[in-house]
Amino acid sequence: MIRGGILITGTEVLTGIITDRNGPWLSEQMRASGIQPAQITVVGDRPEDVLAGLESMKAQGLDLIVTSGGLGPTADDLTAEVVGRFQQREMVLDEPLEGRIAEILSALSSRWPNLDMEAVRAANRKQAVIPQGSTILEPVGTAPGLLVAPQEGTEGPLVLVLPGPPRELKPMWTTALTTSPLRNLVSEAPSFERRMVRIFGIPESELAASLRSIEDTGLDVSRLEITTCLRRGEIEIATTFVPAAKDEYEALLKQIRERHGDLIFSEDERTIDDLVAALLQGTTVAVAESCTGGLLCTRLTELPGASDYVLGGVVSYSNSVKQSALGVAPDLLAQHGAVSEPVALAMAEGVCSSLGAAIGVGITGIAGPGGGTDEKPVGTVCIAVTQGDKRLARTLLIPGGRADIRDRSTTLALHLMRRLMLGETD
Amino acid sequence: MIRGGILITGTEVLTGIITDRNGPWLSEQMRASGIQPAQITVVGDRPEDVLAGLESMKAQGLDLIVTSGGLGPTADDLTAEVVGRFQQREMVLDEPLEGRIAEILSALSSRWPNLDMEAVRAANRKQAVIPQGSTILEPVGTAPGLLVAPQEGTEGPLVLVLPGPPRELKPMWTTALTTSPLRNLVSEAPSFERRMVRIFGIPESELAASLRSIEDTGLDVSRLEITTCLRRGEIEIATTFVPAAKDEYEALLKQIRERHGDLIFSEDERTIDDLVAALLQGTTVAVAESCTGGLLCTRLTELPGASDYVLGGVVSYSNSVKQSALGVAPDLLAQHGAVSEPVALAMAEGVCSSLGAAIGVGITGIAGPGGGTDEKPVGTVCIAVTQGDKRLARTLLIPGGRADIRDRSTTLALHLMRRLMLGETD
Repeated sequence: MIRGGILITGTEVLTGIITDRNGPWLSEQMRASGIQPAQITVVGDRPEDVLAGLESMKAQGLDLIVTSGGLGPTADDLTAEVVGRFQQREMVLDEPLEGRIAEILSALSSRWPNLDMEAVRAANRKQAVIPQGSTILEPVGTAPGLLVAPQEGTEGPLVLVLPGPPRELKPMWTTALTTSPLRNLVSEAPSFERRMVRIFGIPESELAASLRSIEDTGLDVSRLEITTCLRRGEIEIATTFVPAAKDEYEALLKQIRERHGDLIFSEDERTIDDLVAALLQGTTVAVAESCTGGLLCTRLTELPGASDYVLGGVVSYSNSVKQSALGVAPDLLAQHGAVSEPVALAMAEGVCSSLGAAIGVGITGIAGPGGGTDEKPVGTVCIAVTQGDKRLARTLLIPGGRADIRDRSTTLALHLMRRLMLGETD
Repeated sequence: MIRGGILITGTEVLTGIITDRNGPWLSEQMRASGIQPAQITVVGDRPEDVLAGLESMKAQGLDLIVTSGGLGPTADDLTAEVVGRFQQREMVLDEPLEGRIAEILSALSSRWPNLDMEAVRAANRKQAVIPQGSTILEPVGTAPGLLVAPQEGTEGPLVLVLPGPPRELKPMWTTALTTSPLRNLVSEAPSFERRMVRIFGIPESELAASLRSIEDTGLDVSRLEITTCLRRGEIEIATTFVPAAKDEYEALLKQIRERHGDLIFSEDERTIDDLVAALLQGTTVAVAESCTGGLLCTRLTELPGASDYVLGGVVSYSNSVKQSALGVAPDLLAQHGAVSEPVALAMAEGVCSSLGAAIGVGITGIAGPGGGTDEKPVGTVCIAVTQGDKRLARTLLIPGGRADIRDRSTTLALHLMRRLMLGETD
C-alpha cells in the first residue's frame, strides 16, 4: 500500500482565520489515484513546526507528502526552503524560472496601475529560489510548484510542494500526476473502491445497532472499511474496499437495504442537491424564504446550469414583505402566526404565482437566538412545497444554533421537494 | 510557553466528506487561554493512525492534546480506547455514567417513537467505558468528554477527549477549562495579544513590499509574529505578540496606516459583515440578486438581529423575474444586456421600491461555467448600491470558479454598501 500525508502550512489556517479546503480535496485526489491518505496536518508559518510535520510523516513511513501554502512573496512564506532542508538539498536561484515569473507579473500589473513594479518583482524573486534538482511545475498564479525527492543515497518520502490558493493548487496537482516522480509512485499503488449510501430519517445510533446486527448474522466485513457520519441531518455510510471484496460489500448493501430501504435516498455519489436538480430538469421552481434568508435559493443555484429551472425567489424576512411580495393574507398571519404551516403554504403558492413557476417552496421559522416562545421555541421551522394542486408541509423542531437551524432547514426542504416530485402527498 | 496540539479523528473528515470546523475553533480557544497551538492533525478512524498522531505530538513535547470525534456508538468510534492505551490506563465501565447516558437516551426516544430502545442502549453502553482515573465531562449529547493524564510515574501531555459534533464540543471545552487538570495547565501559560488589520483594494505582493520597506526603516519586528493572508479578496494582517512588545506593534501599525490608511477598513476583530451590520442599524435594506442566487441576503442574515434592518430580497435568476418582480424595463435589458451597470442600478432601485427599503443593492453577473462572451467573460459582475438619490456602481472581472465568483461578489457588494453609507459617491 502506498500512503500519503498532507501538510497544510499557514498560521492563518492554524488559527482559524481561514478554513482549509485543500486538505480534504488533496485527500480525495490521493485516494482516487490509489494512494491511501493517512493524515492531514496543519501547522503555522514557523520553520521548526513545518519541519516537525515533515519529519513526523517520514517517521510514520509515508511514501508521499503534499504541502500546500507558504510559496507567496511575503517573509512568512518559507515552505520551499524548509522542504529543501528536509530533503538535504541546497537552495538555488533558477534564473529562467525567475524570468517567467517576471513575465507573469508584467501581465498582471495592468490590473493594478499604481504599483511599484520593481518592489513587486523583488518580492517575487524569492519564488524562483528552489531546492536543487527539483522538478518544477509551472505557476498558475505567480508561484511555481515543486517535486522534491530525497537527496541521492538517502531514503524518505517524495515531497510535492503546491501553492495555497485552491485555484492554483488544483490544476497543479493534475500536472504533477503527469511528472515522472509522481507517476512512478502512483503506478505502484493498488486501487480502492469507495461506495456511499445516504439515509435520511433515522438517528445514527439506530444505524449503529443495524450494523452490529448485520455482523451478528455472520457476514464477514473485515475487508470493508465502513465509516458512518451524521451530516446536515443525513447519515452517510462510506465504505472503502479492495476490488476483491466486492461481494462482501454487495452483501452488506443488501442487508442495509432490507432494514432501511425506504429511507435510503442515494447509493451513488449523488447528494440530495444533485437528485433534486435532476428532478427539476424540464420544470421551474421558485422559493420563498424567511428564516433561511436566501440560503435555499443559494444552495439550489450552486450547481452550474441551475438557471434552466430556478426562476428565482423572494426573501420575505419581514411580515410586510410576506404580504406585499408574496400576497400572504394578513388574516392568515394574525390567526396562525408567521411561523405556521398555513403561512409556509401561502408563501410557496404566492412565490409560484408571482414568479410564474411550476413548483414553489416556502420556509418560515425561528432561527434564533431571539424570537422563541414556549409554544414555538427557537428551532421551530415550517416548510411547504407545492406543485399544481399537490402539496406537502412539515413542522420541525431543529436542534442547534442559528447556523445549524438555517442549514438543516434547507436540507429538509430539499427532501420535501424530492418527495413531492416523486409523487408523495403526505 | 505551553503548547497544544489538536487531533481530529474521523475518516469522513480525512476523506473530505465533511469539513472540519472543530480544529480551527479549538485552536482559537487554546490561544485565548494562553496555550500556543502548534498543529492540527486529521486522521481516519484507524486505531494505529490515531495512536501515531498522539505519539507524534508527544514527541514534539506538546503539553496538551485535544481530540475531537470518535466517541459515538458505532464500531468505528474508538478514541477513548486509544487514548487509554496511549496514557497506559486500563479501560473500565463507569456504571453511574452508564446510568446517566441511559437517562439521556430515554428522554431522546420520544423523538423517534419506533426505536428498539434495548438495541440503542447496547450501542451506547460502550460510551461509558473509559480510561481508569479519567476526569469525566458530562455529556451534552450522549457522549461524555474525558480528561486523561499520563499514568502516574510517566511523563507526557494531558489529553482532553471531546466529541465531534460542534454543539457538544464547544460547551464541553468551556467546562473542561474549569476542571483542575486543565485549569492548572492554563495557569502556567503566558498571555498573548492578537491584533488584526484588514485591507481591501491592493494585491498581497504590494503589502509584502510594504512590510519589507517597513523593516528597512529599522523597526525591530522580531517579537511580532506577523502573518498575512488573502481571503475573499481582502488582505488580513494578523499579528501575535507578548504584551511587552506592544510598543513595537503600535509602531508597525502606524507605518501600515501611513502607507495604506485609506484602504484599511478594520483594525479590531470586526469583519466587513460586522461593519455593514453596524451601519445598517436604524435603517432598512433590500437586495436584488442574480448570479449570487441569494448569497448576499444569506450573508446579511447570518448575524443575529438582522431582522431589525433586512427587509428581504428578490432573487431574479431569470430575466422575466427582473422585469416582473423588480420592474427592470425590457428596453434597458435589451440595450445594455442583463449584466450591466444600468440593470444593476435598476435592480437596486426596483427592490427598494417594491419592498419599501431605504437602501437597495443590485448584483448581476456571469458566475459560469457557461454564459461568458468575449465582451463579457465569465467573472464579469456588476454591483450597484442606492440610498435615496445617492448611488454607487462598479463593474468587476473576478477570477476563479463559480463558487469564488459568487462569494467574492458578496464581499465587493458589502464594501460598496459601506462606502455609500459612509458618504462616498464615486
